[in-house]
Amino acid sequence: MSLDTALKVGTPEDVSARADAPGAEVSQAHEPKGLVARFGPDEPLAMDAGVQLAPFQIAYQTAGTLNADRSNAVLICHALTGDQHFAHTHPVTGKRGWWETLVGPGKPVDTDRYFVVCSNVVGSCMGSTGPASIDPATGRAYGLDFPLVTIRDMVRAQAMLLDRLGIRDLFLCIGGSMGGMQVLQWAASYPERVFAAMPIATGPRHSAQNIAFHEVGRQAIMADPAWAEGRYLEAGTRPAKGLGVARMGAHITYLSEPALHRKFGRRFQGGSAPTFSFNADFQIESYLRHQGLSFVERFDANAYLYLTRAMDYFDLAADQGGVLANAFKGTKTRFCVMSFTSDWLFPTSESRAIVHALNAASAPVAFVEVESDKGHDAFLLDEPAMFAAARGFIDAAARARGL
Amino acid sequence: MSLDTALKVGTPEDVSARADAPGAEVSQAHEPKGLVARFGPDEPLAMDAGVQLAPFQIAYQTAGTLNADRSNAVLICHALTGDQHFAHTHPVTGKRGWWETLVGPGKPVDTDRYFVVCSNVVGSCMGSTGPASIDPATGRAYGLDFPLVTIRDMVRAQAMLLDRLGIRDLFLCIGGSMGGMQVLQWAASYPERVFAAMPIATGPRHSAQNIAFHEVGRQAIMADPAWAEGRYLEAGTRPAKGLGVARMGAHITYLSEPALHRKFGRRFQGGSAPTFSFNADFQIESYLRHQGLSFVERFDANAYLYLTRAMDYFDLAADQGGVLANAFKGTKTRFCVMSFTSDWLFPTSESRAIVHALNAASAPVAFVEVESDKGHDAFLLDEPAMFAAARGFIDAAARARGL
Repeated sequence: MSLDTALKVGTPEDVSARADAPGAEVSQAHEPKGLVARFGPDEPLAMDAGVQLAPFQIAYQTAGTLNADRSNAVLICHALTGDQHFAHTHPVTGKRGWWETLVGPGKPVDTDRYFVVCSNVVGSCMGSTGPASIDPATGRAYGLDFPLVTIRDMVRAQAMLLDRLGIRDLFLCIGGSMGGMQVLQWAASYPERVFAAMPIATGPRHSAQNIAFHEVGRQAIMADPAWAEGRYLEAGTRPAKGLGVARMGAHITYLSEPALHRKFGRRFQGGSAPTFSFNADFQIESYLRHQGLSFVERFDANAYLYLTRAMDYFDLAADQGGVLANAFKGTKTRFCVMSFTSDWLFPTSESRAIVHALNAASAPVAFVEVESDKGHDAFLLDEPAMFAAARGFIDAAARARGL
Repeated sequence: MSLDTALKVGTPEDVSARADAPGAEVSQAHEPKGLVARFGPDEPLAMDAGVQLAPFQIAYQTAGTLNADRSNAVLICHALTGDQHFAHTHPVTGKRGWWETLVGPGKPVDTDRYFVVCSNVVGSCMGSTGPASIDPATGRAYGLDFPLVTIRDMVRAQAMLLDRLGIRDLFLCIGGSMGGMQVLQWAASYPERVFAAMPIATGPRHSAQNIAFHEVGRQAIMADPAWAEGRYLEAGTRPAKGLGVARMGAHITYLSEPALHRKFGRRFQGGSAPTFSFNADFQIESYLRHQGLSFVERFDANAYLYLTRAMDYFDLAADQGGVLANAFKGTKTRFCVMSFTSDWLFPTSESRAIVHALNAASAPVAFVEVESDKGHDAFLLDEPAMFAAARGFIDAAARARGL
């Protein structure tokens, strides 16, 4: 197997070799480390907002090896504040890959068998073009001049990346939360390119309550004078307080009341009594403040605005005259839809709506509701029932594809 | 019936007459309109924080007439951002009383039969002493120098007010949310003074998730530079943005996903398509922004910090060695505990914990779970099942008391 067909684990060391691969105009990004596909003025991204974005770039990581007939590619779609570092040490936080629970050698998404790609979504801030990128028209960061991004735009950019990598179709497209929205959009936009799809902890459209929570987060950011109307990079300020508040609020929605009760309850920090002050008396307060502080170290405030907006705008049925089943009409993709009992951000009813639409479209679909008290974030955590179901679905799909 | 026994509807017009009532050192507050009981240096409020607060004042409103044997008094306890204007036009907002659905002539809490009192809690900002009041020691607003307030402190102050009004015991103590916490605390602190108690949409302690939501709100306020470390009154600034964000986030928790879906869904403002901007595209966004803006017109940011903290600290069992039933040991009070099916801030499980404790204490208790999609705020809204249950309980209690 030659280099141009055998794409290997995408560590920075591989980049020089990868850059020689035919049709793969990839190079190493300065920050973050990893692989970057650049698209020039002649290859714009056609965005739903009516803008042709060019130039732009997509940062990505890979694991495993593409087989000779290029039939074993898996696309992992990351969530709102996730990134491409699904199975590698994160260059900013130093933490392990965010989906090493599910993806790796011998794991349900087995990197010994599949070639796994994960790209930072367009509009984000981990190497792909977004509001913190330099606008070539002005020489300064886009800020709010960056066009609004949709889930469909993210998927279009991913499709361009796969074209660049010479991957015609995906064996599996998998992701949770906003990643699950991308999986659904993939199945709707490019049904012939997706053999199996696994949308997890997601929904066919963002609910009013979820839009409401996102709007609070955006208002928290925009209320911060350091946000400077989105021009904080030039102003030399950082809307850390606003972004931290936004993250704290959002983080609550990723967990569950039972999990918070189990992990923190009403336990006090370093004592058994209140201090009668506004200090972080309770462990849950200290935990939340830490979540806010650590998040602002790794995430761009404008990117947070853009990606929350992309989720809010997501409504797969709206593109189909309000009939969700039409989004999947004639599909041959096989689906496994998964939800978690304690997820109140994307409750099981949302997954059921997807399943009903797939049933109406006569698509092959399995539905798994995992019993868990961990809330929405369960898809990122150690959930043996999720792993078992994913393994069963993916192994069966691999057999059907002759892998 | 002479003036000193027949306290009448507490409109400002009554104040001059009321001020003459023996033992009733009441006068008209400049703002808001209504009745005010002042407590001098010799009548301090003994607070849980270890402080003797003096002087202090309690603003209140009344409706109905106290009967000759003073056996028909009802205390209404208001919620976090509520106030004493339960049945009168609000002096700031111009809106009708917040509990006119439940309280008034011919209503379940019948002002033709009962003498109803509602006082602004200590620590709030509608005429009772709180962080926006002038600290006599410094001549400037207390700000964060105000001692932390607890639910028990609020109840102690209410007991002092009732003493002042010559009301030994209550026929009924009723309230929702933080008001329900006060009802429970009344039953625990002064069981011999409460004939019937109706805690609604509340719990015996604030949950980790609820503390978390409150902490986000507090951080939003404190992140606002206009908050000025709590000294915004002297600084001439207003932390309106931070307080607005806090209110927006909290408001979501007062509603429910089904109610938000029914009222707003994914409907756009004035059109059927997104504007691809950060404008309030969705009706739910516009609604939330309005909630934030209108709230900051009527509420003090520091008071919001103090009252959320009071709720967080509430844990009735903690005062009883962790055994909630001990809080009600030997009580003769009759209870009606009420919850709403879609209330996820104080879910029915919280009410059940109260009921179980009352059962264990052999207290007479009725439990009503009202089917409603309106969420936590259902107790403030038009809920016929709530009115019917309240009327049944209160009428039966009145018969038992010979009213």
